[in-house]
Amino acid sequence: MKSYRLVPGHGLAGLTVQDRDEPEPGRGQVVVRMRANSIGFRDLMVLADNYPLPITPGVVPGCEGVGEVVAIGQDVGRVKAGDRVAAAVFPRWHDGPFRRDNAAQLGTMIDGVLTEYAVLSEDGVVHIPEHLSYEEAATLPLAAVTAWNALTAGGAPRPGSTVLTLGSGAVSLFTLRFAKLAGARVIVTTSSAAKAERLRALGADEVINYRESPQWWQDVRALTDDLGAERVVDPSGPLEQSLKSVAVSGEVALVGRWLSGAEGAMPLDPAVLFGAGAVLRRVATGSRAHFTELNRAVAAHRVRPVIDRVFPFDEVPDAFRYVQPGGGFGKVVISHD
Amino acid sequence: MKSYRLVPGHGLAGLTVQDRDEPEPGRGQVVVRMRANSIGFRDLMVLADNYPLPITPGVVPGCEGVGEVVAIGQDVGRVKAGDRVAAAVFPRWHDGPFRRDNAAQLGTMIDGVLTEYAVLSEDGVVHIPEHLSYEEAATLPLAAVTAWNALTAGGAPRPGSTVLTLGSGAVSLFTLRFAKLAGARVIVTTSSAAKAERLRALGADEVINYRESPQWWQDVRALTDDLGAERVVDPSGPLEQSLKSVAVSGEVALVGRWLSGAEGAMPLDPAVLFGAGAVLRRVATGSRAHFTELNRAVAAHRVRPVIDRVFPFDEVPDAFRYVQPGGGFGKVVISHD
Amino acid sequence: MKSYRLVPGHGLAGLTVQDRDEPEPGRGQVVVRMRANSIGFRDLMVLADNYPLPITPGVVPGCEGVGEVVAIGQDVGRVKAGDRVAAAVFPRWHDGPFRRDNAAQLGTMIDGVLTEYAVLSEDGVVHIPEHLSYEEAATLPLAAVTAWNALTAGGAPRPGSTVLTLGSGAVSLFTLRFAKLAGARVIVTTSSAAKAERLRALGADEVINYRESPQWWQDVRALTDDLGAERVVDPSGPLEQSLKSVAVSGEVALVGRWLSGAEGAMPLDPAVLFGAGAVLRRVATGSRAHFTELNRAVAAHRVRPVIDRVFPFDEVPDAFRYVQPGGGFGKVVISHD
Amino acid sequence: MKSYRLVPGHGLAGLTVQDRDEPEPGRGQVVVRMRANSIGFRDLMVLADNYPLPITPGVVPGCEGVGEVVAIGQDVGRVKAGDRVAAAVFPRWHDGPFRRDNAAQLGTMIDGVLTEYAVLSEDGVVHIPEHLSYEEAATLPLAAVTAWNALTAGGAPRPGSTVLTLGSGAVSLFTLRFAKLAGARVIVTTSSAAKAERLRALGADEVINYRESPQWWQDVRALTDDLGAERVVDPSGPLEQSLKSVAVSGEVALVGRWLSGAEGAMPLDPAVLFGAGAVLRRVATGSRAHFTELNRAVAAHRVRPVIDRVFPFDEVPDAFRYVQPGGGFGKVVISHD
Repeated sequence: MKSYRLVPGHGLAGLTVQDRDEPEPGRGQVVVRMRANSIGFRDLMVLADNYPLPITPGVVPGCEGVGEVVAIGQDVGRVKAGDRVAAAVFPRWHDGPFRRDNAAQLGTMIDGVLTEYAVLSEDGVVHIPEHLSYEEAATLPLAAVTAWNALTAGGAPRPGSTVLTLGSGAVSLFTLRFAKLAGARVIVTTSSAAKAERLRALGADEVINYRESPQWWQDVRALTDDLGAERVVDPSGPLEQSLKSVAVSGEVALVGRWLSGAEGAMPLDPAVLFGAGAVLRRVATGSRAHFTELNRAVAAHRVRPVIDRVFPFDEVPDAFRYVQPGGGFGKVVISHD
Repeated sequence: MKSYRLVPGHGLAGLTVQDRDEPEPGRGQVVVRMRANSIGFRDLMVLADNYPLPITPGVVPGCEGVGEVVAIGQDVGRVKAGDRVAAAVFPRWHDGPFRRDNAAQLGTMIDGVLTEYAVLSEDGVVHIPEHLSYEEAATLPLAAVTAWNALTAGGAPRPGSTVLTLGSGAVSLFTLRFAKLAGARVIVTTSSAAKAERLRALGADEVINYRESPQWWQDVRALTDDLGAERVVDPSGPLEQSLKSVAVSGEVALVGRWLSGAEGAMPLDPAVLFGAGAVLRRVATGSRAHFTELNRAVAAHRVRPVIDRVFPFDEVPDAFRYVQPGGGFGKVVISHD
Repeated sequence: MKSYRLVPGHGLAGLTVQDRDEPEPGRGQVVVRMRANSIGFRDLMVLADNYPLPITPGVVPGCEGVGEVVAIGQDVGRVKAGDRVAAAVFPRWHDGPFRRDNAAQLGTMIDGVLTEYAVLSEDGVVHIPEHLSYEEAATLPLAAVTAWNALTAGGAPRPGSTVLTLGSGAVSLFTLRFAKLAGARVIVTTSSAAKAERLRALGADEVINYRESPQWWQDVRALTDDLGAERVVDPSGPLEQSLKSVAVSGEVALVGRWLSGAEGAMPLDPAVLFGAGAVLRRVATGSRAHFTELNRAVAAHRVRPVIDRVFPFDEVPDAFRYVQPGGGFGKVVISHD
Repeated sequence: MKSYRLVPGHGLAGLTVQDRDEPEPGRGQVVVRMRANSIGFRDLMVLADNYPLPITPGVVPGCEGVGEVVAIGQDVGRVKAGDRVAAAVFPRWHDGPFRRDNAAQLGTMIDGVLTEYAVLSEDGVVHIPEHLSYEEAATLPLAAVTAWNALTAGGAPRPGSTVLTLGSGAVSLFTLRFAKLAGARVIVTTSSAAKAERLRALGADEVINYRESPQWWQDVRALTDDLGAERVVDPSGPLEQSLKSVAVSGEVALVGRWLSGAEGAMPLDPAVLFGAGAVLRRVATGSRAHFTELNRAVAAHRVRPVIDRVFPFDEVPDAFRYVQPGGGFGKVVISHD
């Protein structure tokens, strides 16, 4: 079977395909025939060795993958052969708050899912919604889990409250849709009229073009009777404007994939942090419990994730090159079919 | 101006209409020209002196009322003359948990709103949604606030979670609608096919006829893959079945207007309480903050409350007689027009 | 190696000792040489097959055990040979709320710890505090975890708040001590002056003799300026009195080991549940995270658990007979030394 | 009666004493004969018109004051003449989260308490602990309420958890003492061996001299097995070091009186915010409910606040000059006796 392998810090040159024996599941493990993956900006940071977690040289990259269980080890009870499952990005983070001893992450510290067969802990997989194709389900493990955690860790947004999310990256698109399911009024920022149109079609109540309105926090306040948005999900920055957009006693979820981005990384005046009068919560993906919960919402409301483009498994390097410039709308997916 | 007055314990015989001077607002107070009221089972308990709060003899009864601000006292800043407002049932319970020193309740411990003009603290009124008539808004202060508190005090229900509410009383109807706004799947119990039809029209995903299925908790479990409902709102009992319907680590909101009802008041085996593995939360109306929050949701989603029947102000005794047998669908409203 | 084995429903006659080979750890597992166990009322219910979980015939009984790791399987990273550990009663309940798919419990559904060697998941053990002997540490897995969960699941009690706990059973003794560590004022009920003395020595601020004062809830209210206790931990009932003792918006933790007890099992008037104006939370042991947290508190404050009596491993039947009548003070411990 | 009056932006030159008639209480109001006040860095910012709230020209300054109720208006029920009370800094913030419509603050937006007689809403005062002198109680309204809110808004710290607080300012001293009452291990930073000694006498488990150890966050991690402190209360900055000191999923309470301080105001790299993996909560004083709760803890544990120096009421300007250089230990108090 074929697996991608990664030596970090060399960009695409560090990515190779290797042939290995099909793995056997140990006690408590399952083997999953991967059927689809998803990649994104996070993977580019991993390739560049510019990621806040240690990367094991030679690791199988990729943290987003779904497939079919083809073998189960001893004592496995949560899944069975034939089940359609997704891998949890943090396979040991089952529930409750993130803790340091659950920090092992697929595709960096431990082997990931850009492979034909993956051995995973039965505790590190979740069933995927029936109405989704593998390609669609492959969009969930990182972006949807992050959006769900960002929106619900401090309590689900209440019907009638206002949620602001930034841009049309994958986290933002899921935030928009989950917030609409929760009955919130959703404001989204974007850079073009074309994207604004698509955001409205996905349910956005208000779209602000940040190119036309660089101080867009003022628009947010104008749209909220100067109260601000109770919840802000910020995957892109600039954080300063998020802090100026949030309501007193509200919450900014700092998703923070903008860490290495030029604009988002602008130093922040602590006075703005104080003046916001809110809570700032750092969100990094989420637990298996978050993943299970969001799957239920996706299933109940038959949400269909937005896919930007699908590449075959042997064209992963091309897929990375496609991600590079950014600017898409929806997730970039890898299909094994 | 005319006010109803009550000597409790005599039923309708204890209710009289008296003429008084129009009141003047003190510092921090407003005078509201009442335009509509609502009454219900709670008022029957008050008439019968069968209510868990002390009742001041001669009190103006009624805790549900809306109208127009016609005069404001010194230092009033939250409202102005001409504003359309509702009275909060507990005028001193502004925010946070219920505390004993905020227990003064309209229509029992202090004068209520079955009157042409009421003097109220500016801190004890909230603005009502613009799209609602006074008659519609009069349904909110007790039933909608209770439903909102029951659903959200332990965190808003998450999209895709299951909410069970019992019957088609006013609290249950608001629970149904607020839970749907929050993206939940809603199960409702009822006694007739006609009501089932109306509940479905209001958004109920599943309706169980408890006459046909007296052990309806089994239906709830069957409908939820044996997991139970994450949230149960119980305004009618029997509590035992609610406890058997709730999911492990879920919550039963005990609204408890069934206190004096025969069936609901059945003694409870503590083993059922333990076996539920859940939280039981007593809910009694809610705070001004709850009222403000729900108004925002009602306004954003343009919810229109269900009114059973409207009586004119001088036919309040007839309205009480109408409430008596129960069996309606929606609130009984009093109009001053 | 010797293991107790149980056929439930026959009392002590269903308990035998069997000889087996020393076990080998599978992937993710550890073998623990048990050094001490603890038993209590819960085990009597299991013997009698009067317990709310299914019991596997021939199961190794006992859910409270500590010992030394003597072998580790593949991929084990959280513990190493030589570590002093305790088994978690629910080895799959690591963190977050109790969920049905983590319900496997030691000593009922799966093999427990009344054995010389136990194979346990590395995720189902925690390190024990250094200052404790194995005998002392053996008191923690059930009673201390339950007390910690009961006190902290709804937020730790605040300094200066009032905590009521019932009786001098093991859960109550830990509740008393943890509540004192949290700066609370603690009221305890008991049946004798001798126990009252010992409770005061452990830090109880007020002790109520429920034989002298059968309506002891009135004493609780008298001691709290009629406000009641913010937190009530009830391991013994009668629940009705707990509900009359709790403050408005407070919490009763229903520990519920009194399920089969005559007095505690008295049917409850739902009006009392409503009148309490509080939250009732069912508590059944706790997660590994609870166990880890309490160990830190026990270590920081050098808490020494109260042991009633120690029996050697081959006298477990005598230990059960000793537990039977109740009335002790502290845990009954089994030593393997 | 004499009142200080303030025209902001002129420093001490803007502060005058004026003579007015003794006030009469309106409905719902009380008149308090002030007996002691407290002042601090916040008041210097107000004098300098360098404060994040609007300041009414001619306002009575001062937000910290205690005294005796000498007259009550109509409908007052929570206090009576003769009661010893403190004014709440935000008289309209009774309970729940801070909301914009409760933002009126004593001594800036509305008249404060550097006066012989103050008219206050009955809802804006709390009873003070009996064992405290007026001078001691005057230290509570700002610093103790802030510390209580900072420590408990996200749940009280659990026994055995680690709390870090920065420096020996008044908020930090109260944080230290409240955290000790809650059973936490407390680490404090300071600049001198003399202060370190005093902090240890107040219960500090660990004191770090930040002059000797400018990268003191490394000391915090060394003292916590590299886990960091679950709670950090930061009244002084630099925030960057607080963020490097906090545990994953922990909380930094940003008290932020350092806003205009040079060191504390250093721009912050958002990557540090993200890397902390924690929640940042802005804290600005607290509600009346916080004040009432902390008073109960102070009373139960007979806490005696630390007073730096007492000035008579007619030497308030000297007291401000004394505050100016900073460097004291405990609160600066004004006595009316």
